Amino acid sequence: MNRIITISRQFGAGGRSVGKLVAEKLGIECYDGILVDKLAEETGFEKEYIKDTGDSSLESKLMSFFSGHAGAAQQDYLWLAESRIIERLAEKGPCVIIGRSADFMLRHHENVVNVFLHASMEYRIHRIMEIYGEKERINEKVLNDMDKRRAAYYQFYTDRKWGDAANYTLTLDTSVIGVEKCAEIIVKICQ
Amino acid sequence: MNRIITISRQFGAGGRSVGKLVAEKLGIECYDGILVDKLAEETGFEKEYIKDTGDSSLESKLMSFFSGHAGAAQQDYLWLAESRIIERLAEKGPCVIIGRSADFMLRHHENVVNVFLHASMEYRIHRIMEIYGEKERINEKVLNDMDKRRAAYYQFYTDRKWGDAANYTLTLDTSVIGVEKCAEIIVKICQ
Repeated sequence: MNRIITISRQFGAGGRSVGKLVAEKLGIECYDGILVDKLAEETGFEKEYIKDTGDSSLESKLMSFFSGHAGAAQQDYLWLAESRIIERLAEKGPCVIIGRSADFMLRHHENVVNVFLHASMEYRIHRIMEIYGEKERINEKVLNDMDKRRAAYYQFYTDRKWGDAANYTLTLDTSVIGVEKCAEIIVKICQ
Repeated sequence: MNRIITISRQFGAGGRSVGKLVAEKLGIECYDGILVDKLAEETGFEKEYIKDTGDSSLESKLMSFFSGHAGAAQQDYLWLAESRIIERLAEKGPCVIIGRSADFMLRHHENVVNVFLHASMEYRIHRIMEIYGEKERINEKVLNDMDKRRAAYYQFYTDRKWGDAANYTLTLDTSVIGVEKCAEIIVKICQ
């Protein structure tokens, strides 16, 4: 087995927890924040800028890629830098890569399992409050906006629809299935 | 457990095989052709007309619901008749229901697991030829047209996107995961 598992997810759906569990169970690497750091080194971009792009962090100050040439060029550059890092990680061996449109970037690789995780609005809000302790800022509107941003970002660079089942090996509703069982299912598919 | 499992699927992705296997493993009913028959009794429609609607059978003569008032009214009537039958089946007890937008029709029910199955074009063509022995008519264009029809039909009546991960508990690529493992995963979720 030389599997790469990419995990795309709605914010608050438990992507990080599922990804880490899968990596643990399979005894392979899991890249997420580390990847962002590597990107920062590679590109020389400010960490904060990178964190705010693509994955719409909680306190998102995401520059719109529709808003001007300078922003667009920077984002294009970031996209290319991310592609290079993700290619390199995939070549190193089996791993879990969370976020960063890795499913698309590795579309020509064999043995890639692409996962998309989503959850009910109620579950996401509850989970975010529990984990991040964000009590005031999170509501349905904020999460809907994040989903729209991720979808627009993804579609702009890939020409695909974010969350369209056809693009993923499997998609799972973590609010119905639960984090532990989701991890078990992904592991089962990789075996 | 009082589970209803709905299976939506691309034509040729193995929905019927997976559905039957799941029902077998759980020892519950599986409705597909039988459902069509029940519909026929209920509505008095010709069987062939019903078979050609909604699920775009292989030799589809599907009347477009955009093409005229008479066709549209008939199709609306069929949709309501299907809803009634599916409601009734769901009340009878745990079962697998294949196709017929059952995921949407049972959206207010508890304990419904909604599955969407898709597969690569190559796999679907191979599978259809193997099972149905259709050697001349099936190609990528025909399957793409079927997908579009199912999507348009589904969207027209539900205001949802067919194959959008967010609408399903889980979606699986049968061409990567395989029919048997797909069935095992669905069973695992129901337990």
